[in-house]
Amino acid sequence: MGNNLLIVHGGGPTAVINCSLAGVIKGAQENPKVGKILAAKNGMGGVLREEFIDLTDTSEEEIQLIIDTPGSVIGTSRDPLSNEDYERAKEILIKNEISYCLLNGGNGTMDTTARLSEFVANTGIRVVGIPKTMDNDLGKTDHSPGFPSAAKYMAKTTKEIVADVKGLPIHVVIVESMGRNSGWVTAASALAGEQEGFGPDLILLPEVPFVEEEFLDKISSLQKRKSGIVVVASEGLKLESGELITKPIFKSDRAVYYGDVGSHLASLVISKLGIKARNEKPGLLSRASIDIRSEIDMKEAYNVGMKAVEGITNGYTSSMVSIQRVSDKPYQVEYKMVPLTKGMIEEKLLKRDYISKDGYGITKEYIDYLKPLVGNLDNKMISFND
Amino acid sequence: MGNNLLIVHGGGPTAVINCSLAGVIKGAQENPKVGKILAAKNGMGGVLREEFIDLTDTSEEEIQLIIDTPGSVIGTSRDPLSNEDYERAKEILIKNEISYCLLNGGNGTMDTTARLSEFVANTGIRVVGIPKTMDNDLGKTDHSPGFPSAAKYMAKTTKEIVADVKGLPIHVVIVESMGRNSGWVTAASALAGEQEGFGPDLILLPEVPFVEEEFLDKISSLQKRKSGIVVVASEGLKLESGELITKPIFKSDRAVYYGDVGSHLASLVISKLGIKARNEKPGLLSRASIDIRSEIDMKEAYNVGMKAVEGITNGYTSSMVSIQRVSDKPYQVEYKMVPLTKGMIEEKLLKRDYISKDGYGITKEYIDYLKPLVGNLDNKMISFND
Repeated sequence: MGNNLLIVHGGGPTAVINCSLAGVIKGAQENPKVGKILAAKNGMGGVLREEFIDLTDTSEEEIQLIIDTPGSVIGTSRDPLSNEDYERAKEILIKNEISYCLLNGGNGTMDTTARLSEFVANTGIRVVGIPKTMDNDLGKTDHSPGFPSAAKYMAKTTKEIVADVKGLPIHVVIVESMGRNSGWVTAASALAGEQEGFGPDLILLPEVPFVEEEFLDKISSLQKRKSGIVVVASEGLKLESGELITKPIFKSDRAVYYGDVGSHLASLVISKLGIKARNEKPGLLSRASIDIRSEIDMKEAYNVGMKAVEGITNGYTSSMVSIQRVSDKPYQVEYKMVPLTKGMIEEKLLKRDYISKDGYGITKEYIDYLKPLVGNLDNKMISFND
Repeated sequence: MGNNLLIVHGGGPTAVINCSLAGVIKGAQENPKVGKILAAKNGMGGVLREEFIDLTDTSEEEIQLIIDTPGSVIGTSRDPLSNEDYERAKEILIKNEISYCLLNGGNGTMDTTARLSEFVANTGIRVVGIPKTMDNDLGKTDHSPGFPSAAKYMAKTTKEIVADVKGLPIHVVIVESMGRNSGWVTAASALAGEQEGFGPDLILLPEVPFVEEEFLDKISSLQKRKSGIVVVASEGLKLESGELITKPIFKSDRAVYYGDVGSHLASLVISKLGIKARNEKPGLLSRASIDIRSEIDMKEAYNVGMKAVEGITNGYTSSMVSIQRVSDKPYQVEYKMVPLTKGMIEEKLLKRDYISKDGYGITKEYIDYLKPLVGNLDNKMISFND
């Protein structure tokens, strides 16, 4: 049985996925049980194609570059796997003398972790998951690395847009936020309001069914009180029926493409209310803007990578490193290994307690949860023309 | 005749318009010729409504907050002015004992500066312009404060998106850039390519007529060589005919609203080539992201504010503070007062020498012009899966 370690990335990158990779490399370099440190090029597909990157001798300087690069420096993918794929992955792991297999990802990847663990049972190969999702929709952990940075990005960005709109108050501005099914990131925009007068006016969450008339009424009545209105809306806004609020713009054999929610809402405001409106869609930047990362997030992402190496070399398999919050003030966490079984993890939506009664904002409870993860937004602002 | 000073903002804000305001306040506070320091609330409209903010006793701490706030902290506007408005403005200036009137803005505002100067001739009131435009389309100056920061934002953002797309290479990503008529900011995305492999694949400038078939051919042939493609496109892309490439989505009595260029191009790629594509539209963030500002820009913006006070109190009127580049290496500028006459300033488009032969990129000459303004992009990145 070999002692090589393999790290595989799954799903969309985050601003700190490479910090976890750095933690894995560093943890493995310092661990005498580990032989070569290999990375799959572009996710599970890379395993099946036997495309490995040898990171055993990564230098300190390279580790720093890894930490400072957004995206996934080894590549990631969203390939679905068949039973044949799992069998083939098992053969390839054995052939390459890999007994430590770490999968970094979200819900889908944790399911893959559990399934692959089953396929390699009795081979001595172990499989451990490293949590990662900017959406924060992964269960069995207080939060996932990637989310705090995306939340900070959304909060800072919203505050900056609010300041801009205060200065040229002729717009309704819709800011489209990532997070198709869960509203964790969208809701984080509320943190901009920590400094009074700089928060968004409305937050449209995917957990709350969108009612066009009610939305337009809200805009109309806001417009009577103030001239610059900022709305943060999830890219995945749905109607009561569960359908997306946007129409498909193109259907192919494999997929359906929908129009942008932000642009749709801006058009609604223009056409139904005759008010000037525009939309911003930072999109990928909310997971790629490395200057705006949360320091806690960078540290925790690194730590879950280290802990995964520690756990897997100590015998854990079919498990995930979980971040468990011990206290809010001071903020403290513990890292625990939690067992995984296939299909066990459900998409974690924003808790009802975190959504305000009217559905267009969030509660203090959510701020209490979020604030330690994001840290300070740093810049206090000023306005003379409120 | 009074000795009060008035500062008025015109047009869209930039990331450093408040730095110029700080320079004006500081310069005026230190100048014995100046009495009260007043600001018009929300632009020329504020003058006509006699809405002034008294900034005479602004504290050092407030000046720092002003510098750190995006948007315009005193408010700005895009109000067009009639002859009656100019007459009324003159009365109000006299009434409020204002003899120093500073207008901060772009082409439109410099025209207003010249016109207002004519209306107040023989009253002892002087009017001086402070250059500002993220679009960099203002003539009579090497560049305008606001542009270097927008350029840096676009370059950094593009580099981050390229890194993201390298890691999950299943997309064509269209990044829509601000700058409706001039391509200075869009072209600045090329600076991401200073680190090889991190530049955009195509740049679509408003100065270069868009040819759909050619664009799709370019994408197809890029797709044969690489799997993640990043295109930066101006929000104002036009056809050979001069028409925008997007269709109007709504017409009112007063205005026509067009769809987003980025979203239009992504739909084109999806529907005509059957390739997955998405679009990002950082929009207002390119002028509001204060963490990503160019240091040179902040300093120069402050300086043109100071110089405007110096110039106007020394007798200049119907003039603008111009930034004149003395040398590239080391980068050095001089601030000069240049005379304004109404209608004299033409929108400055990206020079033909700065656009590459095929029209889809830029030349080394543009990088040489741009680089000293933007400074270093700081973060070097790494990739293991090219």
